[in-house]
Amino acid sequence: MINVGIVGITGYTGEELIAILIKHPHVKITGAFSRSVHLKPLSEVFPKFDGRVDLTCLKPDIKAITKNTDLVFLAVPHTTAMDLAPQLLKAGKRVIDLSADYRFKDAGSYEKFYKVKHKDKKNLANAVYGLPELYRNKIKDAFIVANPGCYPTCAILSLAPLAAIGGIDFDSIIIDAKSGVSGAGRKLEEGFLFSEANGNFKAYKVNNHQHMPEIEQVLSKLAGKKIKVTFVPHLLPVNRGILETIYVKKSPGQKSQDLVKLYKKFYKNEPFVRIREEGDFPQLKDVVNTNFCDICVKEEKDKLIIVSVIDNLVKGASGQAVQNMNIMYGFPEKTALV
Amino acid sequence: MINVGIVGITGYTGEELIAILIKHPHVKITGAFSRSVHLKPLSEVFPKFDGRVDLTCLKPDIKAITKNTDLVFLAVPHTTAMDLAPQLLKAGKRVIDLSADYRFKDAGSYEKFYKVKHKDKKNLANAVYGLPELYRNKIKDAFIVANPGCYPTCAILSLAPLAAIGGIDFDSIIIDAKSGVSGAGRKLEEGFLFSEANGNFKAYKVNNHQHMPEIEQVLSKLAGKKIKVTFVPHLLPVNRGILETIYVKKSPGQKSQDLVKLYKKFYKNEPFVRIREEGDFPQLKDVVNTNFCDICVKEEKDKLIIVSVIDNLVKGASGQAVQNMNIMYGFPEKTALV
Amino acid sequence: MINVGIVGITGYTGEELIAILIKHPHVKITGAFSRSVHLKPLSEVFPKFDGRVDLTCLKPDIKAITKNTDLVFLAVPHTTAMDLAPQLLKAGKRVIDLSADYRFKDAGSYEKFYKVKHKDKKNLANAVYGLPELYRNKIKDAFIVANPGCYPTCAILSLAPLAAIGGIDFDSIIIDAKSGVSGAGRKLEEGFLFSEANGNFKAYKVNNHQHMPEIEQVLSKLAGKKIKVTFVPHLLPVNRGILETIYVKKSPGQKSQDLVKLYKKFYKNEPFVRIREEGDFPQLKDVVNTNFCDICVKEEKDKLIIVSVIDNLVKGASGQAVQNMNIMYGFPEKTALV
Amino acid sequence: MINVGIVGITGYTGEELIAILIKHPHVKITGAFSRSVHLKPLSEVFPKFDGRVDLTCLKPDIKAITKNTDLVFLAVPHTTAMDLAPQLLKAGKRVIDLSADYRFKDAGSYEKFYKVKHKDKKNLANAVYGLPELYRNKIKDAFIVANPGCYPTCAILSLAPLAAIGGIDFDSIIIDAKSGVSGAGRKLEEGFLFSEANGNFKAYKVNNHQHMPEIEQVLSKLAGKKIKVTFVPHLLPVNRGILETIYVKKSPGQKSQDLVKLYKKFYKNEPFVRIREEGDFPQLKDVVNTNFCDICVKEEKDKLIIVSVIDNLVKGASGQAVQNMNIMYGFPEKTALV
Repeated sequence: MINVGIVGITGYTGEELIAILIKHPHVKITGAFSRSVHLKPLSEVFPKFDGRVDLTCLKPDIKAITKNTDLVFLAVPHTTAMDLAPQLLKAGKRVIDLSADYRFKDAGSYEKFYKVKHKDKKNLANAVYGLPELYRNKIKDAFIVANPGCYPTCAILSLAPLAAIGGIDFDSIIIDAKSGVSGAGRKLEEGFLFSEANGNFKAYKVNNHQHMPEIEQVLSKLAGKKIKVTFVPHLLPVNRGILETIYVKKSPGQKSQDLVKLYKKFYKNEPFVRIREEGDFPQLKDVVNTNFCDICVKEEKDKLIIVSVIDNLVKGASGQAVQNMNIMYGFPEKTALV
Repeated sequence: MINVGIVGITGYTGEELIAILIKHPHVKITGAFSRSVHLKPLSEVFPKFDGRVDLTCLKPDIKAITKNTDLVFLAVPHTTAMDLAPQLLKAGKRVIDLSADYRFKDAGSYEKFYKVKHKDKKNLANAVYGLPELYRNKIKDAFIVANPGCYPTCAILSLAPLAAIGGIDFDSIIIDAKSGVSGAGRKLEEGFLFSEANGNFKAYKVNNHQHMPEIEQVLSKLAGKKIKVTFVPHLLPVNRGILETIYVKKSPGQKSQDLVKLYKKFYKNEPFVRIREEGDFPQLKDVVNTNFCDICVKEEKDKLIIVSVIDNLVKGASGQAVQNMNIMYGFPEKTALV
Repeated sequence: MINVGIVGITGYTGEELIAILIKHPHVKITGAFSRSVHLKPLSEVFPKFDGRVDLTCLKPDIKAITKNTDLVFLAVPHTTAMDLAPQLLKAGKRVIDLSADYRFKDAGSYEKFYKVKHKDKKNLANAVYGLPELYRNKIKDAFIVANPGCYPTCAILSLAPLAAIGGIDFDSIIIDAKSGVSGAGRKLEEGFLFSEANGNFKAYKVNNHQHMPEIEQVLSKLAGKKIKVTFVPHLLPVNRGILETIYVKKSPGQKSQDLVKLYKKFYKNEPFVRIREEGDFPQLKDVVNTNFCDICVKEEKDKLIIVSVIDNLVKGASGQAVQNMNIMYGFPEKTALV
Repeated sequence: MINVGIVGITGYTGEELIAILIKHPHVKITGAFSRSVHLKPLSEVFPKFDGRVDLTCLKPDIKAITKNTDLVFLAVPHTTAMDLAPQLLKAGKRVIDLSADYRFKDAGSYEKFYKVKHKDKKNLANAVYGLPELYRNKIKDAFIVANPGCYPTCAILSLAPLAAIGGIDFDSIIIDAKSGVSGAGRKLEEGFLFSEANGNFKAYKVNNHQHMPEIEQVLSKLAGKKIKVTFVPHLLPVNRGILETIYVKKSPGQKSQDLVKLYKKFYKNEPFVRIREEGDFPQLKDVVNTNFCDICVKEEKDKLIIVSVIDNLVKGASGQAVQNMNIMYGFPEKTALV
C-alpha cells in the first residue's frame, strides 16, 4: 500500500488519475492539489466522484504535497513541473511527471519547442522516459519518470519494431495524427469551444508540433541514427482518442516480410499492446477508456501503412502513468487498468 | 438599397448577420465593427467569407458607425447596446438591437434579471418588440427595434394563440426548453468547451433564466392578465437550434377544440410560422439554417402538449433581425431569408 | 463463484454486460449467445475485448444455454425473452430478463403497449421487478427478475419518495425525458443514423411510449392509488445517458418541506442513489459509465421540479442487472459496479 | 428558364439538389422521383421544404421522367444510372449523373472497383467528366456529364497544378482523406449508426477505395504519364465535409518555388477555388454548406504538404452538379451557389 498525491487535480489528466486510482487496491490517494479549488471537497469539483472518494483539495504547497505521500503525480502544465520536481525529489519522494519537462535528454530540443529555459538539468539527466514497452527495467528503479506525450506514445509504439529492425527508409516516415479535443486540456481557447470544434476538423501546428522532437528522440535512439519525421496533427471532434495513420517507405530492394508476426514477437509479453491481423484496422472505440494501444500494419508495394489507436487520457497520459507506478512499486502491471 | 452597419461582428449573431445580408439584394454592408479585430479584413476573421464580401473591420467608434449607414444592427452584449443606441438614434440612424437592453417595457424586470441599472429609459419607451407575427405594424415605423430573445421567440410563438384566445389555465404553463450551444455566444467558459458539452446534457438556470420575464411580459399583454410561467432551459450538444416542449392545462370544463385549425388561422399569413398536423412533431433539423418556426400542438385529455422548434441564430436572432429590417424598409419580408 | 450465460450478445446491453462482468471476481461468463455470430470469437465481434475475455459465441440453443450456467441474462428483444425464460426456469436456472416481457403484473398493459400476446403468464406472476431500491428483499430469492426499463428506472427513483409520502397532486406529474441514442439499441433505422441524429433533437412517441405504463404501475402501487403521468421522451445526440426533468404540483395547502432531507432519508442506505443539494442539478456526465442515479429536487412555489440522471446502459440496463445478480447471490452489492 | 427532374430524391445528394435548386432563378423543378415515396408530397418526405416547394414525388418511370424536363439529375446508386441514362439521352434529355457510372473512360477500371459489368459503353465514350476547373469547355456542350466523386474533387483540385507543372515525384503521392458520414449516403449499415460513429474515428477501404482509380485517371491524363497514388480514407464524426492532407515528394534537385503564387495563377478565374496563404490551413467549417474548395500548400524541405477542404454534398456532389448545369445552360456559374 502506498500513499500518493496528485498535483493538478482540475485538469483532464488529474481527473483521470483519480478515476483510475480509486479502483487501485494498493494505493491510497492522500492528497489532491490545485490552486483554484483550495479547500473544496473533490466531490464538489467533480460530482461524479461523490461517494467514491473522500478528499479535500488543497493548494500545491510543497509542504502539503510532501506530507504523507510516497509518490507524487505531476499533472500540471510544463514549467510548473520543473519548479516542483526538484523539491519533491529532495524530500525523498518519487515523481511521475505527466508534463513535458523531463522528456528530453537534450534540453535544447525542449527549449526550442516549448520556448522556455529548462531550469532543472540536473534531474533531467536521471529522468526515465516512461514508456514501459521500451524502458520497463529503468522505470522500476526510477525516482523521476517522464510520462510520454500522447501522440508520441502512439507513434513510437507503432514504429519501434521498424526502428529496431530496419528495412525501411528512415527519412520517409509520415505521421498523420488525429486527436480528440481533451488532448488540449481544459484550456479556455476559442478553437476548443463546442460550437467551434463540433462539426469541424482541422490540421494544426503542421510539422511544427512539440511532440515531433519527442518522437524523433526515441526513434533515433532505437535506430541508432538520426531520424526526422513528418508530423501533421489534426483536431477530431470527439472527446477522447488518438488515431495515427503512418506511412513508411521500405528500403530499396527490401523484400516482403511477415510484419504482423514481427510486431507480435516484438510486443510478445506486453499487456497493453495488441497487434491486429493485416487489414483489420483498429478504430478509436476499440481502445477508448482503456490502456490499450492497438496496431495494424499493412504492406502496400513499396510502402507500409500503419494505423494505431490509443485513448489519449489513458495510455496517452494517466493510464500509462499508473502503469509506470505499478512497475515502480512491483504491483502487477495491469492493476486498476484495462 | 440601404447601407447597414453591424456592431459586434465577432460573435455568432454578428457572423450570422453577415452570412444573411451578403445574400440580400437591397442591402450594402458598409461597416463591420468590433474592438478585437480593428483593421483586420473580415475575410481573415472568418475565412469562409473570403471572396464573398470585401470589408475591413473597425473598432466601434460612434463616428465610424454613423458614417455612411442608414441602419445599424447591434450584435453586442447587453449594457453595450444601451451605451450605443442613444447616440445612434440621435444621429438619425435606425437601430435593431439584438441584445436584451430594449426588450422590457418595465426597466425593473430588466434590472432584476440582468443585474445592472438601465441607462436609457427614454428610448426604452419607444422601442418596439421585434416579433413580426405580433407587432408587424409597429415595427414598420420603429426607430429602435428590440429583437426578441431566442427562447422567447419560440415560446411566445407557441403560446400566443392560446394567450389570445384563452381556454387554458394561465398558471399552469411549463416550458421545458433545450438549446444548442451557440445560444451562449462565443463565451470562453469551461462549460462550453467541446470536451465538457459533448456527450453531456444539463438543465441550467432552472426557473431563473433572464428570458423568463421576457416571455411573461409578452404573454401577459396578449392575455390581458398577469401570466407566470415555469421555465427550465437545458444545454443541448448541438451547434444550433432550440426545441421547446410546452405543457399547458386546459381551463376546467374547456371542451376539445380543433387547435391545429385555430393555430393555422392565427398564423394564416405568416411567412415563417408553419403549423404541423396533430402528432407530426417537428425536429431541430426541420428548421436549422432557416428562419422558420415549426409548431405542433396536441391535446392529451386535460392538457395540451406543444412542441416547437427554431434555429436560435436565425429566427432566434439574426434572421429575425433581417425580417424586421425587411419590414422597416418595405422590402419583401422573405428577402434573403429561407 | 457462479457461471453465467448472456443471450443477445451483439446488442448494446449484451455488450455492456460483458464489459461489467469481466471485472467481477465471483462470476465466470461461460456462454455468450447470439444467432448472428455463431462460432465467432467474442474478440472478433468486439475487438475491444481482445485479450480480456476468451469466449466463442454460440447460437442460442436452449441446450447450449443451460449447459454449465447458474444464471442467464436475457439481453434480447421482447417476445424472445418469454420464449426462452420458461425453458430456462424449468431447467432450474435463475433468469434476469432485460426485456419488457416480465415487467407487467397485468398482461393487458403489456399487450396493449407492446402489441403482442403474452405467452408466459405463469412465470409473470412470480417475476420480481428488479429495482433494488424498492424490491431488494424480493429480488434476493427471485428465480426470475424483470430488469426495469431505462426511463422507468430514472423516473421511479425520482418520484418514489413523493409517491410513498404524498403531499402532491398525483394527476399533475409531467416527465420530460431525454435519452441518448444507445437507448434504441443497434437498430438499423434511418432516424438512428449518425447523419440524421447528429445535430438533431426531437420528441417521439409523445405521451405514448411503452415505458409510460411501467412507470405508472410502480408508482401506483407505491401510492396505493391509480397514477397517470404525462410522459414525453426525446432523442438526445449523445451515446449514453438519460436526463429527466419532472414537474409535480403540490397538494393544495401542502406546506413547504425539506425535500432534500426527505429524499436523503428515503435512500439512506442505497449505494447507487445520490441526492444533490437543492439547486445543484446533476448533469449526464456525472453518471455516464456508472451505476449511479443522481437526483435533485427543488421547490418552486406550488410546484416541485426534479432533475435526475442515469446512464441508460448501466443503471438503466446492464449495471442494474448486475446489481440484481449481486443481490440474488449475496455478493457485495457494489461488486464490479461504480 | 429550364425544367429539371431529379431522380433519387430521398438520398442526401437528391435532398441537397432540391435545397440548391429551389433558390435558382432560372430553374423549375418539374419532377422529383424515387421508388420509395411514390405519390408522397415532397414536403412530407422532407418537412424542411414545406412551404418552399410544391411537388409530389413519383416513382422513376422513364415516361414520367422525360415528360416536361430539359435536364435530368441522376442522384441514384451506381448501376441504376446506366440503366436510365441511355433512355434519357435517347429521348433528347441532357443528363448530369452523380453516380460513378460514367466517370471512367476505361470500363475496366470501373468494373474492377465497382464489381459490375458496364452496360452502356457507348455513352461512356461521350460522357464529360464534370470538374469545371479542368473541363469547363467540354461541359458546355455535353449531353451527359459524369459528376466527379467527392474525394476525387478535393484530391484532383489539390494536385492538378502539380500534375500539370511537374517538379514532383509522381510515385510519392499520399492522400490521407477524412470524410463526414453523409458521404456514405442514407445507407442502413451498423457502422453509420449514431452510437457507432459518434465518438469514433476509423480508416476504411485502406488503399482500396473505388475513388482511387478515379483520382489516378484524371491526374495521369494531366501529367501525361501513369500516376499511382496511396489513398487512405477515414470516417469523421461530422455530418458534412472532407479534409484531405496530401504529402508529395519533390523531384530530386527540384528548387523551392512560390507554390502559392503558382496555385493562385492556375485557379485565377475560378469562382469556387480559394488558395490560402502558406501556413494558413483551411478547416471544414470554412467551406461547409458552400461550393468552395479551399487549398493550402506548404513546402517542408523535400516534401510538399497540402491541406484542402470541401463540403462533400456541395462541391463534392450536388453543388458541383448545379455548377455544371449553369455551365451547360449558360447561366452565370455561381447562380444559386455560394
